[in-house]
Amino acid sequence: MSQNPDIHALTNEDPPTGEFELIGWIRRRTGALPKVRLGIGDDAAEIDLSADTRSILVATDMLIEGRHFTLDTASPRQVGYKAMGVNLSDIAAMAGKPIAAFVAVALPRSHGIEIARELYLGLEDSAREHQIAIAGGDTNSWHGPLVCSVTILGEPTPPRAVTRRGAKPGDRIFVTGPLGGSLRGRHLHPAPRLKEAQSIHRNVSIHAMIDISDGLTADLGHILEESGGLGAILDADAIPIHPDAIFESARDGRSPLEHALGDGEDFELCFTVDPADSARWISESQSAFKPIQIGSIRAEPGIALRLTDGSSRLITPKGFDHFDIK
Amino acid sequence: MSQNPDIHALTNEDPPTGEFELIGWIRRRTGALPKVRLGIGDDAAEIDLSADTRSILVATDMLIEGRHFTLDTASPRQVGYKAMGVNLSDIAAMAGKPIAAFVAVALPRSHGIEIARELYLGLEDSAREHQIAIAGGDTNSWHGPLVCSVTILGEPTPPRAVTRRGAKPGDRIFVTGPLGGSLRGRHLHPAPRLKEAQSIHRNVSIHAMIDISDGLTADLGHILEESGGLGAILDADAIPIHPDAIFESARDGRSPLEHALGDGEDFELCFTVDPADSARWISESQSAFKPIQIGSIRAEPGIALRLTDGSSRLITPKGFDHFDIK
Repeated sequence: MSQNPDIHALTNEDPPTGEFELIGWIRRRTGALPKVRLGIGDDAAEIDLSADTRSILVATDMLIEGRHFTLDTASPRQVGYKAMGVNLSDIAAMAGKPIAAFVAVALPRSHGIEIARELYLGLEDSAREHQIAIAGGDTNSWHGPLVCSVTILGEPTPPRAVTRRGAKPGDRIFVTGPLGGSLRGRHLHPAPRLKEAQSIHRNVSIHAMIDISDGLTADLGHILEESGGLGAILDADAIPIHPDAIFESARDGRSPLEHALGDGEDFELCFTVDPADSARWISESQSAFKPIQIGSIRAEPGIALRLTDGSSRLITPKGFDHFDIK
Repeated sequence: MSQNPDIHALTNEDPPTGEFELIGWIRRRTGALPKVRLGIGDDAAEIDLSADTRSILVATDMLIEGRHFTLDTASPRQVGYKAMGVNLSDIAAMAGKPIAAFVAVALPRSHGIEIARELYLGLEDSAREHQIAIAGGDTNSWHGPLVCSVTILGEPTPPRAVTRRGAKPGDRIFVTGPLGGSLRGRHLHPAPRLKEAQSIHRNVSIHAMIDISDGLTADLGHILEESGGLGAILDADAIPIHPDAIFESARDGRSPLEHALGDGEDFELCFTVDPADSARWISESQSAFKPIQIGSIRAEPGIALRLTDGSSRLITPKGFDHFDIK
């Protein structure tokens, strides 16, 4: 466990040059936030919980070189930042408050120390932004590519954690920001909507929520499936299109809307709210942050898109057979 | 989250044959123990805590093909069993009570489904023995070797978690079982000393504890280092030698004692207790389970071995420069 009271004070320390220095360096940089009773350097870490915590949230995501990124196109620091961010986004999707992160890595033997150092800086960049500690983990080197598995603990915020399974016919569907084209680079710099989710959760009863990693259609599909086989109708004109989706469209000829619906790795949230509750919330909200209403839940399965001319077409089959492993 | 109330009832279900079936199969088999409010199938899992829990223990260990095992000499089921067991052993070393496990895997594309199925059966064998749920994780396939990262949450048991750092000069040193030669096969079948640790913790004040993964000398060294640079003297005749260490000695000519002191992966516990407290405990104990007293802590750094003739020799330098990353 770090004896140093401030992980931030060490940023300008000389970088480690060997395995021994690396571990000491990681250990000194981590584990000093107040929640960490016992950090790196024992058989397990011990994390303090708030007095009223009766349950704990746990998100785990593994990023793999050659599958989720390549070191030709992403720096180790970006990989670290993303590995932390995708897990924070999962905690955001529960309207949770993250507490601490645990990082298991397999480091390539070639340039392993340099990669580890940069990876940890990226993990730390994200951890610091969201005021959580990197409180433990496991560091290994091998004759293989880079693998980074992050597990984040979080606490639910009152009244309870928001799941994917509470959507009801009639619910309004919202997203927290513009979608599409994240592969242009945004996907490496996720901005998990933690504060926004907690704020919305305080002000309105969120029936179901998910973060957009697979793409709006697929992720909304998860909500529909988990909520008992419901469907949705989306207003094509209401879907917020990210400028990156327009760039991608110019490159590949697929429409910006297609990119917004399908690309994924936006790390925005998609959630549903009872129509009366959402009308009250929208009229009362003083917040500068405005989620965008994009459609409604309905009983009939499948996701339909309502076009500008009033016609609609089904964009997913009535049922989902994606490979979902979370 | 599984709707099935009994993970054990499904053991004889037809095995999965494709990725889609695999995930459904894992999901049905996991997450149904009482502590799991929300298991596999949402952005994060939600785990219920006991009413008096004020902190949580977290252990993370990653097993890597070609580094920690090879599929030539270990079956995927053994790898799964071990991956769970080494983490449970870390929770045991804190005298903690495990609650739930999270598993991130990278599966080779070749025979990935078969490997995954066997791996999960092994994880489940161990989880079931210790009554914990596999409550979430992340499953990926890639063109690389098998990587399995397990994170286990646990609760401390009263009065508090036991760390590596409370040893004092004069403390008696104990181990929970015979050591050495685990590479003959025992290392693949760890029997984490969870119940024993909790029982000892109830009956005596444990000053410091660790599980023996790197080897008795190295792991006792961690206690000495974390407790402020202390030393120890061990009685050569008191070190419990596993029969496997004798077999290994016959094979390689190194003494059984050397194997017991150095081999590691025994997953027994090593702990220290105040001398008066330990005398009382030993005289009062009704338990059939008897930890073995092997020596004492002393202020002088380094670990010395006291031989049968009363002479002693230093078996470690005064200080440790191992590559420890936990």
